[in-house]
Amino acid sequence: MKQTFCSIITIGDELLIGQTIDTNSAWIAQQLNPIGIPVKRRIAVGDQKNDIIQAIESERKDSNIIIITGGLGPTSDDITKPVLCEYFNTTLVENQEVLNHISTYFAKRNRPMLDSNLRQAMLPANCEILFNAVGTAPGMLFKDQEQVFISLPGVPFEMQYIITTHIIPYLVTHFKTPNFLHKTLVTSGEGESFIAERLKAFEKNLPENIKLAYLPKLNIVKLRLTAVDIEDHVLETHFETLKTLLQHITVTDKDMELEQVIGQLLNKMGKTMSIAESCTGGSIASRITSVKGASTYFKGGMVPYTIESKENVLQVDSAIIETHGVVSEQTVISMASKCVEKFNADYAVSVSGYLEKNDHDNVVWIGLSNGTHHIAKKMIAPYDREKNTILVTNAALNLLRIFIIGHP
Amino acid sequence: MKQTFCSIITIGDELLIGQTIDTNSAWIAQQLNPIGIPVKRRIAVGDQKNDIIQAIESERKDSNIIIITGGLGPTSDDITKPVLCEYFNTTLVENQEVLNHISTYFAKRNRPMLDSNLRQAMLPANCEILFNAVGTAPGMLFKDQEQVFISLPGVPFEMQYIITTHIIPYLVTHFKTPNFLHKTLVTSGEGESFIAERLKAFEKNLPENIKLAYLPKLNIVKLRLTAVDIEDHVLETHFETLKTLLQHITVTDKDMELEQVIGQLLNKMGKTMSIAESCTGGSIASRITSVKGASTYFKGGMVPYTIESKENVLQVDSAIIETHGVVSEQTVISMASKCVEKFNADYAVSVSGYLEKNDHDNVVWIGLSNGTHHIAKKMIAPYDREKNTILVTNAALNLLRIFIIGHP
Repeated sequence: MKQTFCSIITIGDELLIGQTIDTNSAWIAQQLNPIGIPVKRRIAVGDQKNDIIQAIESERKDSNIIIITGGLGPTSDDITKPVLCEYFNTTLVENQEVLNHISTYFAKRNRPMLDSNLRQAMLPANCEILFNAVGTAPGMLFKDQEQVFISLPGVPFEMQYIITTHIIPYLVTHFKTPNFLHKTLVTSGEGESFIAERLKAFEKNLPENIKLAYLPKLNIVKLRLTAVDIEDHVLETHFETLKTLLQHITVTDKDMELEQVIGQLLNKMGKTMSIAESCTGGSIASRITSVKGASTYFKGGMVPYTIESKENVLQVDSAIIETHGVVSEQTVISMASKCVEKFNADYAVSVSGYLEKNDHDNVVWIGLSNGTHHIAKKMIAPYDREKNTILVTNAALNLLRIFIIGHP
Repeated sequence: MKQTFCSIITIGDELLIGQTIDTNSAWIAQQLNPIGIPVKRRIAVGDQKNDIIQAIESERKDSNIIIITGGLGPTSDDITKPVLCEYFNTTLVENQEVLNHISTYFAKRNRPMLDSNLRQAMLPANCEILFNAVGTAPGMLFKDQEQVFISLPGVPFEMQYIITTHIIPYLVTHFKTPNFLHKTLVTSGEGESFIAERLKAFEKNLPENIKLAYLPKLNIVKLRLTAVDIEDHVLETHFETLKTLLQHITVTDKDMELEQVIGQLLNKMGKTMSIAESCTGGSIASRITSVKGASTYFKGGMVPYTIESKENVLQVDSAIIETHGVVSEQTVISMASKCVEKFNADYAVSVSGYLEKNDHDNVVWIGLSNGTHHIAKKMIAPYDREKNTILVTNAALNLLRIFIIGHP
């Protein structure tokens, strides 16, 4: 095996019956990327000894780093530890440090300690223990010739703690890796095929060790250039060309979300915003407040879900709704301007529309206001309720971003 | 191969660098479960010919149904179709029906058709075409001896359309499967280890073909019993025992989300609700409005993110906030009762707290009101911003559920 590769194995029946969505693998891959370790494959298997062993056997053929998550909990369906013990031909011994940690962990929380928790301090004799300060199941690192096998709890924040604290420093020291570089351009307003058509010549002229990928996501297309063993400035030159070709739809030239871009913009300008969203039901506010420090520029939001609350709480004139309808240019403009007023904010974005399939032609109106200027845009939301919520939220955030830039 | 198994292969570099979370596999698994087809493994590989072929080769050893998603788009990094053509030793031919559909698709949307879109009508000669009414890339079904290989676009709603319309009916007709039964109990208020301790004897007494799984999710633990080839009433008996053992923390005995349970409750009672959430930033409203038909019982919500908006928009008495603090029993009770009033709703839930790590001891207060009765609960949110938002949202929804039941 010349190149370093990592395989990620996730364990748990809940993954195979679809009760849990695997977010761990994506998170782990994101951490490995900057240190130049590509993920070869991701595999999800059930809580079955044979399947776990088969996955390890098959992955060690292609990867020298195997990261396994899940199946380390205190309950009886958690079988990863005994399986690894058998595979690496070792026995469980009590680890005093982990035992002390578990005792303290429960004492601090005023919770009695159970036998099953104590068993988490029984660990394979021949592995390196990766101490878990934020939970009770430690990680384990086994070495076999040139390969490492790392077993981690499936609880996301515990897994993340161990990866950040133990695994990344370990891998950086122990593996030589090629230099991977990624540059991402975020766009909104044009579909994947259209962008591809614009980039035909650009793609043809890319050197072999730079790859272009399209990542479409309901009203947003991310374009990612990946370079292997190439100098920074070469990738930079191609990325600059890409930016020029797509400047009319560019949101940002960093791998950021729309809500982060808006936050940076408002922070730089010292301005504030507010939201009055009906059909998106809190989803725009959720996105805005998912950014740390949003309280410096986000005054607040409202979800006036009924006509009654649009009139009584947001104080949209009932005559406007009666005359033009609750989903109309006039209503969303009134919602946005009332919202600026109520929250004493510099900008407001408003939404009113139909998100259920085949409901009133799926018309959605988005309004924008800064108190003196008002704009409204109509769009069609052609998918199901869940996708339409994301689609409209992305559209509203992008329109707000453009409105803020246009009305500084 | 005696038993029917399915393997799911997802294709795309974006999965391996962690830019995209794979939600398709979970969704597919959920559809296969009720028709008794267990998922053996889920594999994610990059846009590389050899990796795709290797995954197919390895999965066909264990599974007779292979579902492949992704890599069917119009762009040049979409290589699944040529790879399958080569693997199944066939050539591309133009499909008139698909070509007509693509032309109509673009004409309807008033968008010019590109060469790359036309190429989507070129399809392998020896496969069954799975018509895609909601997008431009059709699915493909290849047969080889007793095995089927199904290739689908990666865009979730297109993939979902083809699975529902074509694949499920096909599999039900062509495969004999054992009888899988699942029963799920949703609980809130006790940790995984505690529940496991309570269920020790219960687990020991379960017959071999009934399995218990724990699915913990920030303030919620789902318990799933899975039975293979067993009569309904046997599983039912064990499930009833489980319900009795955990009745003090049971949310529902169906695999439902808290927001759906609340919706059913309010619909049955003919009552309405409203929300005033500060630190959760719209997340509770998002959850409530994710349920179809929420407009019959959800009057609206507010995200008074600043003290100013709590006082001026929600009209919480500034003296209360000054005396007791913005994160306090008194403030959330005032928020909830003002919310009931403003939105003219039967119930309100309110939240104010600190969700950043090590921020004011991470105290969160949750308030509940029906206009005459008010309750507040304090909790600690010990994780990061993202997890704390989910944790507190789940706690608030569960407290609202209990409050509604207690104050009919």
